[in-house]
Amino acid sequence: MSDEMHARRMQKKKDVVDGRIARATEERGVLILLKGNGKGKSSSAFGTLARSLGHGQKGAVIQFIKGRRETGEYRFFREYPNLDWHIMGHGFTWETQNREQDIEAAQAAWAVAEGLLKDPAYQLIVFDEMSYMFKYGYLDPEPVVAALQQRPRHQSVIITGRTMAQPLQEIADTISVVQDERHAFRGGVKAQAGIEF
Amino acid sequence: MSDEMHARRMQKKKDVVDGRIARATEERGVLILLKGNGKGKSSSAFGTLARSLGHGQKGAVIQFIKGRRETGEYRFFREYPNLDWHIMGHGFTWETQNREQDIEAAQAAWAVAEGLLKDPAYQLIVFDEMSYMFKYGYLDPEPVVAALQQRPRHQSVIITGRTMAQPLQEIADTISVVQDERHAFRGGVKAQAGIEF
Repeated sequence: MSDEMHARRMQKKKDVVDGRIARATEERGVLILLKGNGKGKSSSAFGTLARSLGHGQKGAVIQFIKGRRETGEYRFFREYPNLDWHIMGHGFTWETQNREQDIEAAQAAWAVAEGLLKDPAYQLIVFDEMSYMFKYGYLDPEPVVAALQQRPRHQSVIITGRTMAQPLQEIADTISVVQDERHAFRGGVKAQAGIEF
Repeated sequence: MSDEMHARRMQKKKDVVDGRIARATEERGVLILLKGNGKGKSSSAFGTLARSLGHGQKGAVIQFIKGRRETGEYRFFREYPNLDWHIMGHGFTWETQNREQDIEAAQAAWAVAEGLLKDPAYQLIVFDEMSYMFKYGYLDPEPVVAALQQRPRHQSVIITGRTMAQPLQEIADTISVVQDERHAFRGGVKAQAGIEF
């Protein structure tokens, strides 16, 4: 490609991007859903959290599923002053096989979540792996949708999980589907610190 | 669902997961590609970086495309002691429209990247938005593939960008495709600090 053609191509792209920027004028918090079976949903939420904290915003995380190990993200973020990090009461649902205990833990986590959604001090809230709560019937989506709709106008929320409940999808501003095209795990590589947890 | 059915279902899931874990035994660094047009690729890389740093690992980031503003992720991570953060020389390619200057900046960034890929001290390296370098012909994928293949065995690398060069896809361990199902920007919401940058 000639330099001139390149310059024309880039100018055209710039015009398209500038036009889009001019049309997007609303300033408010957004609801972002990260769904699908691919790797990178929770880490994407934590990366956005870093971005938000970098701008001096106050954040909160509720992890609705607790792994067996202390995660790198928890170790990294837990001391951060402008951030609350909550982990739901016990291990993976398929580790515990106790429905009653799971429901209790989910309800307790939701009680904390509801409080955050009423507090205008929080600019970004992450509900990590929340979708399992709906899938297994531990939480009802309706009160969650109501609380999300009534949250402070500038507050953004990110919800992650493989299968997202339909009522949440209806009110979301942004939905990204992370698809698994290939995964090292299926190639025989062990889950490892710093990558998977 | 009865409690007994639930317990059986969870036990079955646990067996499947445990079986997979038992079969994945190799311990080595992985090459992860995050591609597609959806929101969340770079933030996913930065979230994984937080995870890795949380385990005391040493990391590095090269951002191959520089925005017009100082990003939240840069503000958040730049002071972190165990991490190097490099930003390629100048603004968005479609902002500059100068092919020669872009190629120079890309080559300089690649020189830094190549050094990192030879240094066993780094456990996780992020090449953010690198895919544009191949798309616009600023970098040739072949030497990049060669350097990736010769990197220290325990070193993991994450490369992000919309369209990924084919030679990189051939050697990747994990590929996630982030698809845009909905985006607040198209709904008229302005790009905002803490979410988009």
